[in-house]
Amino acid sequence: LKLVTGNSNPALAQEIADYIGVSLAECQVNRFKDGEVQISIGESVRGSNVFIIQPTSAPVNEHLMELLIMVDALKRASARAINVVIPYYGYARQDRKARARDPITAKLVANLLEKAGANRVICMDLHAGQIQGFFDIPLDHLVGMPILADYFLDKQLEDPVVVSPDMGGVTRARQFAERLGASLAIIDKRRPAVNVAQVMNIIGDIQGKTAILIDDMIDTAGTITAGAKELLNRGAKGVYACCIHPVLSGDGVERIQNSEIQEVVVTNTIALPEHKRIDKIRVLSVAELIAEAI
Amino acid sequence: LKLVTGNSNPALAQEIADYIGVSLAECQVNRFKDGEVQISIGESVRGSNVFIIQPTSAPVNEHLMELLIMVDALKRASARAINVVIPYYGYARQDRKARARDPITAKLVANLLEKAGANRVICMDLHAGQIQGFFDIPLDHLVGMPILADYFLDKQLEDPVVVSPDMGGVTRARQFAERLGASLAIIDKRRPAVNVAQVMNIIGDIQGKTAILIDDMIDTAGTITAGAKELLNRGAKGVYACCIHPVLSGDGVERIQNSEIQEVVVTNTIALPEHKRIDKIRVLSVAELIAEAI
Ligand SMILES: Nc1ncnc2c1ncn2[C@@H]1O[C@H](COP(=O)(O)O)[C@@H](O)[C@H]1O
Ligand SMILES: Nc1ncnc2c1ncn2[C@@H]1O[C@H](COP(=O)(O)O)[C@@H](O)[C@H]1O
Repeated sequence: LKLVTGNSNPALAQEIADYIGVSLAECQVNRFKDGEVQISIGESVRGSNVFIIQPTSAPVNEHLMELLIMVDALKRASARAINVVIPYYGYARQDRKARARDPITAKLVANLLEKAGANRVICMDLHAGQIQGFFDIPLDHLVGMPILADYFLDKQLEDPVVVSPDMGGVTRARQFAERLGASLAIIDKRRPAVNVAQVMNIIGDIQGKTAILIDDMIDTAGTITAGAKELLNRGAKGVYACCIHPVLSGDGVERIQNSEIQEVVVTNTIALPEHKRIDKIRVLSVAELIAEAI
Repeated sequence: LKLVTGNSNPALAQEIADYIGVSLAECQVNRFKDGEVQISIGESVRGSNVFIIQPTSAPVNEHLMELLIMVDALKRASARAINVVIPYYGYARQDRKARARDPITAKLVANLLEKAGANRVICMDLHAGQIQGFFDIPLDHLVGMPILADYFLDKQLEDPVVVSPDMGGVTRARQFAERLGASLAIIDKRRPAVNVAQVMNIIGDIQGKTAILIDDMIDTAGTITAGAKELLNRGAKGVYACCIHPVLSGDGVERIQNSEIQEVVVTNTIALPEHKRIDKIRVLSVAELIAEAI
């Protein structure tokens, strides 16, 4: 068994290696002067069962090409099996033709990984479970929700209510609520007419309760910060938020900093660069979960 | 027939469209907030013969992913045939295992393009002709050398000698010399021992002649500027340089600016950003050549 990492999340890869009790294989992923990916694998991988740890987070095209080229190099170096561990699967939101002539990039990425030579995939909390079916090779789909739940159970919040920020996340929120022994509420956004501001309606009782918003990813943080505001306006005592994947693009971190959310709990499927690490964002590790799956 | 372009070289695409007498199809290639490629094709392509103009120049991973996702979108929109026009083929130098466990990224890219759904490829001056064999779909390989030759013929240089900057480029240089009716010389670089500076030897007569260095691409410009210096030291009257692909990474442009080379003649297979455009670099267009091939 060999573990290798690209430049996407070497800290997570190291943590996973520590859990398993191996060291990361010698593999440098650099750039030539013109920006092309240069890979140097420093040890034999012939006949090995290799796991590449590489979430395809931003810059997604760089990290995805690194991954594909690593797979190519390992294949040509006679690795026995190439397992790609993609804790965050970039392009997951482009999973269907929402408009005419849209690409289905999530499927394209699956095809590219298989073509490059991946033999098995390990993913976490895919934006849509259907993406599993985009692969014809074995895929393990890990779920990070229990890690978030354990954290909130430890907090022993008084009278918590789990809130889904939209209709799409209801199932995840329900499971989370069950695990916490909490009640459930849902934010229902409607646009009464074109060019009229969205109206938020809250289904379920939040009065005097501590709300925990849960989503699969937080990107620009617009959804959860607006949701938090509404929850407090309608009588919630306090608001937490949590997600698996801290995409945090654009002003996401600033929005969280300036919001009334007490704490945003995320995982390390995506590495947060220094400037995105603020006290209000608490990062839990998925290393053990992934190590167990390997 | 429909022409579309990504963000790599829209000016070249427009020039090609003008030659053919069509307008570029409605296709916006943008980015979501998190950096993922977003494509909006604004008109029907059902049953069309579509040509995508997209050199995979730097940033190569961005431009390559744009191209793959455009192919995916066009395929799913029922285009009849998808022709990818790649005037500069990124990763062409990673075309073999030069060291143990190297990837062969040029082949990987060919596989990815086919997998995405490309039906035909048009390339120009591949770093190695063998890359043609990496594809199982039809490939047209265009040669830009005559464009460079015509430019130098117009100059009516007195007593020109064509110089290959290394052994790898001898065949190209020979053809170029024939076309110009010029003689041929070759720079032969040797490293007498490890950690000893390279020694340049010049094969052929350059005394009192005007040298024209020719290569397929100029990247950091280290090779041609060192070559030019040596040619002048050994008695050449003046030095020009030319290439098809102006990669010009790192200090390439600065090196050219500070060199004794009179003029560097390149083509527009790669778009030069504003800061790389200097008087000393002369850009010729390949638009007509590509338009004829389409
Ligand atoms: N990287 C992205 N950032 C924001 N929106 C995206 C991204 N990728 C795809 N989308 C859009 O998000 C929508 C799907 O999101 P969802 O409804 O949450 O599954 C589609 O309209 C997509 O075009
Ligand atoms: N983008 C690049 N920039 C510089 N060198 C490269 C690049 N890609 C590959 N190479 C190396 O260039 C050598 C091949 O160049 P050549 O001998 O001119 O065909 C190999 O050793 C490659 O590893």
